Amino acid sequence: MRFLVINPNTTDAMTEDIGVQARRYAREGTVIDELSPAWGPASIEGHYEEYVAAAATVETIKERAPDYDGVIIACYGDPGLFAAREVAPVPVVGIAEASMLMACTVGHRFSIVTVLPRAVPLLEDMVRLHGLEARCASVRPTPLTVLEIEKDPASAEREIVKASKEAVANDGAEAICLGCAGMGPLDKAVEPQVGVPVLDGVACAVKMLEGILDYGLQTSRVAAFKEPEPKAYRERVDRAVQPA
Amino acid sequence: MRFLVINPNTTDAMTEDIGVQARRYAREGTVIDELSPAWGPASIEGHYEEYVAAAATVETIKERAPDYDGVIIACYGDPGLFAAREVAPVPVVGIAEASMLMACTVGHRFSIVTVLPRAVPLLEDMVRLHGLEARCASVRPTPLTVLEIEKDPASAEREIVKASKEAVANDGAEAICLGCAGMGPLDKAVEPQVGVPVLDGVACAVKMLEGILDYGLQTSRVAAFKEPEPKAYRERVDRAVQPA
Amino acid sequence: MRFLVINPNTTDAMTEDIGVQARRYAREGTVIDELSPAWGPASIEGHYEEYVAAAATVETIKERAPDYDGVIIACYGDPGLFAAREVAPVPVVGIAEASMLMACTVGHRFSIVTVLPRAVPLLEDMVRLHGLEARCASVRPTPLTVLEIEKDPASAEREIVKASKEAVANDGAEAICLGCAGMGPLDKAVEPQVGVPVLDGVACAVKMLEGILDYGLQTSRVAAFKEPEPKAYRERVDRAVQPA
Amino acid sequence: MRFLVINPNTTDAMTEDIGVQARRYAREGTVIDELSPAWGPASIEGHYEEYVAAAATVETIKERAPDYDGVIIACYGDPGLFAAREVAPVPVVGIAEASMLMACTVGHRFSIVTVLPRAVPLLEDMVRLHGLEARCASVRPTPLTVLEIEKDPASAEREIVKASKEAVANDGAEAICLGCAGMGPLDKAVEPQVGVPVLDGVACAVKMLEGILDYGLQTSRVAAFKEPEPKAYRERVDRAVQPA
Amino acid sequence: MRFLVINPNTTDAMTEDIGVQARRYAREGTVIDELSPAWGPASIEGHYEEYVAAAATVETIKERAPDYDGVIIACYGDPGLFAAREVAPVPVVGIAEASMLMACTVGHRFSIVTVLPRAVPLLEDMVRLHGLEARCASVRPTPLTVLEIEKDPASAEREIVKASKEAVANDGAEAICLGCAGMGPLDKAVEPQVGVPVLDGVACAVKMLEGILDYGLQTSRVAAFKEPEPKAYRERVDRAVQPA
Amino acid sequence: MRFLVINPNTTDAMTEDIGVQARRYAREGTVIDELSPAWGPASIEGHYEEYVAAAATVETIKERAPDYDGVIIACYGDPGLFAAREVAPVPVVGIAEASMLMACTVGHRFSIVTVLPRAVPLLEDMVRLHGLEARCASVRPTPLTVLEIEKDPASAEREIVKASKEAVANDGAEAICLGCAGMGPLDKAVEPQVGVPVLDGVACAVKMLEGILDYGLQTSRVAAFKEPEPKAYRERVDRAVQPA
Repeated sequence: MRFLVINPNTTDAMTEDIGVQARRYAREGTVIDELSPAWGPASIEGHYEEYVAAAATVETIKERAPDYDGVIIACYGDPGLFAAREVAPVPVVGIAEASMLMACTVGHRFSIVTVLPRAVPLLEDMVRLHGLEARCASVRPTPLTVLEIEKDPASAEREIVKASKEAVANDGAEAICLGCAGMGPLDKAVEPQVGVPVLDGVACAVKMLEGILDYGLQTSRVAAFKEPEPKAYRERVDRAVQPA
Repeated sequence: MRFLVINPNTTDAMTEDIGVQARRYAREGTVIDELSPAWGPASIEGHYEEYVAAAATVETIKERAPDYDGVIIACYGDPGLFAAREVAPVPVVGIAEASMLMACTVGHRFSIVTVLPRAVPLLEDMVRLHGLEARCASVRPTPLTVLEIEKDPASAEREIVKASKEAVANDGAEAICLGCAGMGPLDKAVEPQVGVPVLDGVACAVKMLEGILDYGLQTSRVAAFKEPEPKAYRERVDRAVQPA
Repeated sequence: MRFLVINPNTTDAMTEDIGVQARRYAREGTVIDELSPAWGPASIEGHYEEYVAAAATVETIKERAPDYDGVIIACYGDPGLFAAREVAPVPVVGIAEASMLMACTVGHRFSIVTVLPRAVPLLEDMVRLHGLEARCASVRPTPLTVLEIEKDPASAEREIVKASKEAVANDGAEAICLGCAGMGPLDKAVEPQVGVPVLDGVACAVKMLEGILDYGLQTSRVAAFKEPEPKAYRERVDRAVQPA
Repeated sequence: MRFLVINPNTTDAMTEDIGVQARRYAREGTVIDELSPAWGPASIEGHYEEYVAAAATVETIKERAPDYDGVIIACYGDPGLFAAREVAPVPVVGIAEASMLMACTVGHRFSIVTVLPRAVPLLEDMVRLHGLEARCASVRPTPLTVLEIEKDPASAEREIVKASKEAVANDGAEAICLGCAGMGPLDKAVEPQVGVPVLDGVACAVKMLEGILDYGLQTSRVAAFKEPEPKAYRERVDRAVQPA
Repeated sequence: MRFLVINPNTTDAMTEDIGVQARRYAREGTVIDELSPAWGPASIEGHYEEYVAAAATVETIKERAPDYDGVIIACYGDPGLFAAREVAPVPVVGIAEASMLMACTVGHRFSIVTVLPRAVPLLEDMVRLHGLEARCASVRPTPLTVLEIEKDPASAEREIVKASKEAVANDGAEAICLGCAGMGPLDKAVEPQVGVPVLDGVACAVKMLEGILDYGLQTSRVAAFKEPEPKAYRERVDRAVQPA
Repeated sequence: MRFLVINPNTTDAMTEDIGVQARRYAREGTVIDELSPAWGPASIEGHYEEYVAAAATVETIKERAPDYDGVIIACYGDPGLFAAREVAPVPVVGIAEASMLMACTVGHRFSIVTVLPRAVPLLEDMVRLHGLEARCASVRPTPLTVLEIEKDPASAEREIVKASKEAVANDGAEAICLGCAGMGPLDKAVEPQVGVPVLDGVACAVKMLEGILDYGLQTSRVAAFKEPEPKAYRERVDRAVQPA
């Protein structure tokens, strides 16, 4: 099997780490190609960045998915997931979705531990969109940005453990979903310190996608994920998407 | 007051009609500038088109909103609404949001009558994201595309009346939200045929936004709609977003 | 436009303040007539007072609404709102409803800051009745009665700021709805101290109602708000409604 | 035990029938006094009538409850129930509440069969207010008014059976709650024709209240149903509440 | 009336206490026979024990229910309740169900105070299964096991009071359901210390069942609680169910 | 990997078919041992049968799970799932759970097509218990028993296709979960006739469990699925569980 793993942000070091993490849990014979879109933000912590990244991500998936057996969107808001399902001829899985669904099999309720407080409502909406609010005990932030997690794993580990312990002690969490792709490599370091299953979405998505493909499932085409009808597009004149 | 009304699709005739509809209900002294993004799909009926259009829309809003007192996103999925709130220094209202909120004041429950069946799950998600599922009796499709509605108002009126009557008779709808910006000009023609209030989101958004500004409200900045932090973006090399 | 603003309690000083607040945000040309019912409690903090006041309020609306273009019920439980819709020939808006709907456009979730703790379950029910529980972060009491707020605005401001800050810090509130008509005049004093939008229902209701009327909407008559059928009433023999 | 059973409408024949029905299922030793308020509508089918009747009902309960061990509000919207709990020194049960709670013990989900279609949203709100929406399969109207049910039991029986069978066949109902006090005497005639338990709220309320009192429970006073604080009331000058 | 009260665990002293408590609130003429299954765990604090006990309980009910007018399952997870309804020819009530339904008539929201923390998710699921999550303020554990409660009522009382007070102060509880059959005899001792109604499920079930039978209700047979079809069973060879 | 696949009913032919189906989708190297409990009903279509089978199933799992890497409960009510998690030292997956979670990745909403109508409320409760009601479009019965499906695959296929098409056409289903283990082998025959993904829980559970184990996840032990405390059990004297 060949999987395309898209890191929707454009930080190459993080894309590489995601690739490493995906390969760590991939079966022998599962090939992982990791990729960032050609354009977009260096990290995603809010809606604006997510929407810009989502467009770049789905554009990339539209072009590249035909060469793969499955696609993984590796950012914990699942940016562009439903759009990607429409344009990819193969199954697409988001890392938030995958980690939450898999968490449902090992714990009664899970909490998501994520980056800055501003991401909390964004992820609460994402949980609701997946219809999993009854299984989600809480979304807990850390004081860290995406890039700080990438650059300082020791601090990240410490903050994730802290927030996870609070989720277990106060919110009824029985499993922790790591709410940022950059947190993934810390999964097995955090787990014994917290004492409950800790799930990285990249790992979960690889395993879910292998299972989906082994079973021969394809994305449903009757309504939500129907391929787009042929349609005129006004072309984009080259302009950078940049903050003022 | 000066309002920027963005039609997220790139069909200019529709943008003009939306402008006309907005001005029809704007107060004297409210100036309406209608606009499409510089790039993107001619119409929006699914997730892929919505995500591409959302990015183009929020990019446009980021650039243009500072010249206005308020912004309206005039497509019935509210594409990019939460992202727009982050980057606009002024209030932003979506037409789906506005029509649903206003419908809550004139009917016990509302139904949304929209375009093709494929749009139904997309709009059901949108309703859930706004937390209004208890007030939404149903989302009913018509067999029409966005552009067919634009080009053939007589058929559109007939189909909207038909679906609306079914919503009132079978689903408990007491008001109808027109689930496509292109349906807006038909509001007052449909209403007497259905016998319940019929709400166009463009009109509702204009009125909500006038009210929000009269009252001096601004978008909350503490979490969900905090301005994006300064951040590197990888620039986009000119490439059209086009179907294969 | 002419609006009838009913303060369901019978404290005239409060009725006047509500009138002032309504006029503060009304458009030029919007005439506000404020009024209390002829009978009923001096303030409303529980169900009994609310039910008595509701009957007096709807009786008044039935009689007076035909002289107006719209009606506002200015007590934060929206007493008698649905009944008023049945008997008024014009749109009716409640201040709780209006503030919550408008809050949805400026914040991801809102909290309601209100009077005594006993009002909390009453307002939680009201939120549920409007179907907005997914948008309401919390209902927070203050130690103040309605009349204490009326008489001691400085204490009221201090207590409202305190409870609002707690709602923002602990409950995820991104906007504050002032949960008592008497709190309204403090909106712009509280707002900068809390750092999120603060919404007075009287102001919101005036703006919503202007918008509803500009757009030409009327209350739906097909079910929930159908006019009452003609029916015999047993007359009331004069007796005061008084506590033992 | 002595129970005060209030029929919130002022149709004496119906009050008597409710008394008969209550006594039919009361234990030996339970005394039933049935009563209508001194004023108000002859029947209740909408919000306006319900609010007027609620005020008259709670006023009556406030005055009369001290002479009883428990109070039953015998109209299927439970008008004034929460207010009555505040002012009665003894437990108060509504017939809608009682029938729904008891239905939960004999069927997986229940439907409510009621009067005119206009009552459907009113009762759906009532179900939500009691938090029982997950147990309620549907609210089904009949074409009958309250007084037609009272006057023509044969038609009532036929229509109730018809709507009940539809609820069982199409909505998943496993029990039927009779959604009008006037339907109560038909319970045992309807039941064998429908083939599922049929519950009259008057009977259920009598049984629930006997149980509550046997067990020595009293209404909680810590918040929602706290006694009203002493407070000034503006007296009512004698005026009939009458339709124009 | 003759009631079979099953204590699903096999601790005889507890079975006797449950019998005493049931008789304390039973009407004159209601005969209570208390019983444990012939096999199964000494106490129930988790899912495994609950499932084993449920099978033993429903087997017992299948055999013994024909001799009774009604059955009560006296363990606060209502183990086997829906199965018992299928095989008993008479009504069956669970003590959790009964206490929650009755609590709905005396408080706006109730909390459940139970045994070890591990029981919390189990009871949260039970609340959801009964569809009462909107009425349940919280499930609060104590540090006590079932058998410690049985053996040390003084400690039990102290811990129950402590957890109950926290539920009232922090969670909005207006009534307390005692979440273990063994806590029942403490109801009237705890109540005055907490200041809200305290409900023992055994007492509530007795009263609910008396009411159900007085009214002549029977379990619905159309779907969820239809009698099992005749069917082959593979016989069990004698083996103890024991922990390793 | 070695998986224990328990068919909770005692029909050996069905157990063998489940084993075949599990092996069809298992990876090379995954060993499947299929098994029925030593006692219990020949098929499971209601609560009584489910509870008896659940006890037999969890007893078997308790004894046998230590020899395996993972356990699958192969009956579409997931009987005893949470109990099995407590006593198995390895992950346990239910086929209902697995098919629903996997369906979430290929369709916006799924329907469950199952056996007799009596199973509908049982499965609706199961969906709620897993917190997936927002993703479940409907539970649709067929007129077939479990054993008829086993014995007459042609009829089963025809009825499943019929019910599935109705779910897609009327309920908004975009994927179909086969709501009986015996339906599993028909998955790929039904799928092209219905035109949406069709998921057999046995296949899904095998794939989910392989993924869970590849990733090294274990069941959370902090609360819901904590191992049972050591405890006395009263031994069972040999008696067959048989219908009268």
